[in-house]
Amino acid sequence: MKTLGVLGGMGPAATVAFLARVQALTPAKGDEDHIRVVMDMNPQVPNRHTQPEAAGRTLGEMAVRLREAGAEVLAMPCNTAHAHAAAIRAAGLPFIDMVAETAKAAKTGGATRIGVLATPGGEALYAKALAAEGVEMVRLSEADRARFMTVVFGVKAGDVGLEQRAAMRELAAALVAAGAQGVIGGCTEVPLLLDTDDVVVPLTDSAEVLARVCVEACL
Amino acid sequence: MKTLGVLGGMGPAATVAFLARVQALTPAKGDEDHIRVVMDMNPQVPNRHTQPEAAGRTLGEMAVRLREAGAEVLAMPCNTAHAHAAAIRAAGLPFIDMVAETAKAAKTGGATRIGVLATPGGEALYAKALAAEGVEMVRLSEADRARFMTVVFGVKAGDVGLEQRAAMRELAAALVAAGAQGVIGGCTEVPLLLDTDDVVVPLTDSAEVLARVCVEACL
Repeated sequence: MKTLGVLGGMGPAATVAFLARVQALTPAKGDEDHIRVVMDMNPQVPNRHTQPEAAGRTLGEMAVRLREAGAEVLAMPCNTAHAHAAAIRAAGLPFIDMVAETAKAAKTGGATRIGVLATPGGEALYAKALAAEGVEMVRLSEADRARFMTVVFGVKAGDVGLEQRAAMRELAAALVAAGAQGVIGGCTEVPLLLDTDDVVVPLTDSAEVLARVCVEACL
Repeated sequence: MKTLGVLGGMGPAATVAFLARVQALTPAKGDEDHIRVVMDMNPQVPNRHTQPEAAGRTLGEMAVRLREAGAEVLAMPCNTAHAHAAAIRAAGLPFIDMVAETAKAAKTGGATRIGVLATPGGEALYAKALAAEGVEMVRLSEADRARFMTVVFGVKAGDVGLEQRAAMRELAAALVAAGAQGVIGGCTEVPLLLDTDDVVVPLTDSAEVLARVCVEACL
């Protein structure tokens, strides 16, 4: 069994939900069957949108500290921050690429056009990852992208209420209306608002995919 | 703001629930308002009941690593493992004593006889902590104590179903029937099964108390 190192805090609630998923996906009859996790939940990572260089530096430092604390495999339950994957890999540990794994998982059902619910930074990463899988990406309109960010920042402020859930359902429906045969929850705040049943096409949740790959990598 | 170091994994689900409570109790408008948490969730800490010496050694090592990873205050969401508080304090950081804080909180309402839902090891710690507060402790009967342990190990195996919840309610009711004016959920698995509404006297949940004191200590 390997020790999982988690770069967390982006956001904090999404990180906790991710840890719960890792446990739910681990076959366990008692404490000792679970994966050891060392985590740095750092909600003060510089803003990934406005201070990308500072964010990369901080994430690289976190990765080194996690290695020193015993981590053998690294994962980060934040899609947007994967823009700094190289800084994290510089610590010398295997880093599970949430975006690449999610793109691969979303393609499994045979969809050729996949919609993505993500931040602008996350969307750029998914554009590349889906292209590498030969899949066409369906994007939110400009107005819906702005709405998506409002909803995500609402979650970060603690609002996971019914209005927020309805907004996320509508955003997913907009992607389906634009031709998406599948939808990727490409932001770890998405599953805090959206369930599989809320979308009429298959929903691939990046946090769920990452948790599954982490369990496979560590057990 | 201080960085919180969490010695976790005893059990894993209780640790995740504790992290969620810390967040819920933190006034936050966005990610950056939350407390940084470095955690070692180690479900392989040697058994606190059968291998106390090995457990103490491991917990001491975890505390040192958390200090090296940047922790400034330590907390451990497991009552039973507080038998090893001295080994943890040897790392040189302030360690929040969950048992002492919970005993103090339970006394606030003016109760003079308080029942404790805890493992045998946890019960021994609460006996001292409540005596220090001048409060009489009400214990489970031998048979109920065995039942309590069965329920706790069920939670650790992932069972938080209705039968488990009913059993925990009955155990709390047994303490009230034995004269308890208040009940302490003195095991971090308890709140995974028991809500305040489930007990007719005030329920003081040790995980909730620890989360509150951690937020006060770190903000």
